[in-house]
Amino acid sequence: MTGSPPEASSPGRTLMARLDELGRISADSDRLNRQPFTPAHRQAIELVAGWMRLAGMSTRVDPIGNLIGRYEGQDPTAPVLLIGSHLDTVVDAGRYDGALGVLAGVQVVAALHDAEERLPFAVEVVAFCDEEGVRFPTTFLGSKAICGTLDRKVLELQDQAGITVGAALRAFGGDPDALASAAYPPGSLRAFLEVHIEQGPVLEAEDRPLGIVTAIQGQSRLAVVLDGVAGHAGTVPMGHRRDALAGAAEIALLVERRCSATPDLVGTVGRLEVLPGAVNVIPGRALLTLDIRSPSDLLRGQAVAELVQAIHQIAAARGLGCTIAREHDQPASVCAPGLQRVLAQAMRAEGIQVKYLPSGAGHDTMAMAAACPAAMLFVRCQGGISHHPLESMTLPDAEAALRVLLRALRLLALPKARP
Amino acid sequence: MTGSPPEASSPGRTLMARLDELGRISADSDRLNRQPFTPAHRQAIELVAGWMRLAGMSTRVDPIGNLIGRYEGQDPTAPVLLIGSHLDTVVDAGRYDGALGVLAGVQVVAALHDAEERLPFAVEVVAFCDEEGVRFPTTFLGSKAICGTLDRKVLELQDQAGITVGAALRAFGGDPDALASAAYPPGSLRAFLEVHIEQGPVLEAEDRPLGIVTAIQGQSRLAVVLDGVAGHAGTVPMGHRRDALAGAAEIALLVERRCSATPDLVGTVGRLEVLPGAVNVIPGRALLTLDIRSPSDLLRGQAVAELVQAIHQIAAARGLGCTIAREHDQPASVCAPGLQRVLAQAMRAEGIQVKYLPSGAGHDTMAMAAACPAAMLFVRCQGGISHHPLESMTLPDAEAALRVLLRALRLLALPKARP
Repeated sequence: MTGSPPEASSPGRTLMARLDELGRISADSDRLNRQPFTPAHRQAIELVAGWMRLAGMSTRVDPIGNLIGRYEGQDPTAPVLLIGSHLDTVVDAGRYDGALGVLAGVQVVAALHDAEERLPFAVEVVAFCDEEGVRFPTTFLGSKAICGTLDRKVLELQDQAGITVGAALRAFGGDPDALASAAYPPGSLRAFLEVHIEQGPVLEAEDRPLGIVTAIQGQSRLAVVLDGVAGHAGTVPMGHRRDALAGAAEIALLVERRCSATPDLVGTVGRLEVLPGAVNVIPGRALLTLDIRSPSDLLRGQAVAELVQAIHQIAAARGLGCTIAREHDQPASVCAPGLQRVLAQAMRAEGIQVKYLPSGAGHDTMAMAAACPAAMLFVRCQGGISHHPLESMTLPDAEAALRVLLRALRLLALPKARP
Repeated sequence: MTGSPPEASSPGRTLMARLDELGRISADSDRLNRQPFTPAHRQAIELVAGWMRLAGMSTRVDPIGNLIGRYEGQDPTAPVLLIGSHLDTVVDAGRYDGALGVLAGVQVVAALHDAEERLPFAVEVVAFCDEEGVRFPTTFLGSKAICGTLDRKVLELQDQAGITVGAALRAFGGDPDALASAAYPPGSLRAFLEVHIEQGPVLEAEDRPLGIVTAIQGQSRLAVVLDGVAGHAGTVPMGHRRDALAGAAEIALLVERRCSATPDLVGTVGRLEVLPGAVNVIPGRALLTLDIRSPSDLLRGQAVAELVQAIHQIAAARGLGCTIAREHDQPASVCAPGLQRVLAQAMRAEGIQVKYLPSGAGHDTMAMAAACPAAMLFVRCQGGISHHPLESMTLPDAEAALRVLLRALRLLALPKARP
């Protein structure tokens, strides 16, 4: 784990090989699909727990189904440094999202173990049970339970087969009644670090292996309904039309223009439904969604307010009825500045230029920020492709991530370092 | 049938009452739905045939299921003047589309009959079996059969229940084997006149009861597929996106702008499908349709050529893949100038300002133009609403249409008049 090229048995090669092996554990034979509290989840836990024990960790599965490995520190009572990510995947997933953060944690602990090195504090590696929220209509089951922020009501949520979270968890060997005991007591967590592929194209475009996440973006979701007048595509002259799709098109281009004009802002019209949707009928109704994100809640708030006003103006100018529903507003989660500095110091020490960037997607780090300083290290992925079998990461980038993470652990072990 | 206000028993009132009565003959109890070769079609034929006989006509149903009433002329061998429209409807239809043209024909013949007046030629009123093309994937079954232009292959087309045109026709009492005998011999038709509600807002906007159709618009249908790159709505910066929906939005506004800039041109994006269509995913694919119409084939051809070029440019500028399929090109059908002049003369004689306008929708007149001079008289409808239960027409406008149609018949009977 040095700056020299990785050797045959390097930690990076081990990491890549284990990501491949873990990526084959799936409910489906032809694609990666690993949902929480399933046989594939159980199999993944057993595989990863074995690697944890090889790295000198003791392992346990907590009441919500998180796998936790512990590498003891010099002071067993000192607040724990937690590293990790999630084991669950989307359907037809790539093998790096989530798994990388877990196995990178295992790998740096293995390096400490190989060097017979104990830090002043214990290092724990966590493999959260659920982050993607694919099986149940909820996310962050594992990280919220650890932070003590999981609402017990989510135990009643059902998957598509009508099985509740509680029932699935119980059948899995978890203990819904003991959820509270999954929570780390206040003050018992020193920090949380998550390594994750970027899932975006920024690092690749700037030719950088790694990036430090400044904040996980806040998000607003809006649903817009435009009501015009459906009519015959042949008989209604252009000047007489109240075409809902034309209004929606103006809005889609407005969102693109407004969000392109401001750095640190993205906006997407992801859904657009047109009714009645016949080739020879002027659209009478259009339903569209807006997804606006920014690491700055101020920028996002301004953009949403301006867009809402402009959408009403577009509708009014076209004689369209317009309703806008704000479906979701999630504030940005800023990563702990102290941990960002430690990661930056580690990158510099490893000869890697420091790059900061926001995270566009949500991550367990968001939930963990409720319990302790939390930060993320992004690893370049190819083409920004994620949630897809083509998701990929290179061996040199994996090596770089492991070197920086190990270096960061050792920096945090220095007497003065406290995030 | 004079310029004075309609009386209690006026032809206009009779017409309106009969339209109401015919509009109640439907396959469904809660909406108007009258498909060809169904019990509702049979019932409609019987009702209308009764009114034809009251108006002094002999009636027959031809081999394709058209009802034809004949009011004999002074010379039974003279080419026939044919008046009519269709009995079939769309699903959840209004009561004027089609029915008006049939019953207006019956009403003017009734006026001749009441006046014991014979024209030099026979007047026939036809109630075509199928114009809407809702049951079978074909249109103009009735008018094409009369013109001898019906391809026998359409007999094999199936409705959604798998019943062919031929089988449905046979079960209805028609004779698919005798189709050829439905055709009027060349030279045996003097002209065809169709009265129809406008199905558009032009006459209402200009406060005119009637309009003379100059041409039935030609139509081009195009299907455009845009291929971008689906991506995470949070992680992909604006500058990195290849958003298929944004491209589609530009195209929709382009179509609107281009067609608004040219009189006698309309363009509609009626369908737009966005894939994958999730609120948090940048659209990777968009499918949209263009429907471009004009009474001038030259204008339409120019517009389509320009739009195709501009669409490719928009796609290229956005890095989107683009395929454009031309699915349908139907030339415009110009209404017979001689008949237009006769209708104009009749309008003036009835004290109604002459208004010319194109028809945006297709009509039996299009098919009939293959056999004889054919023309259309449009009647104002409310709000341009058609193919909908709210389709409506006023009594004074109905009176005006009957007066003009009767006047036109008498003008055509003058020795010099020949369309």
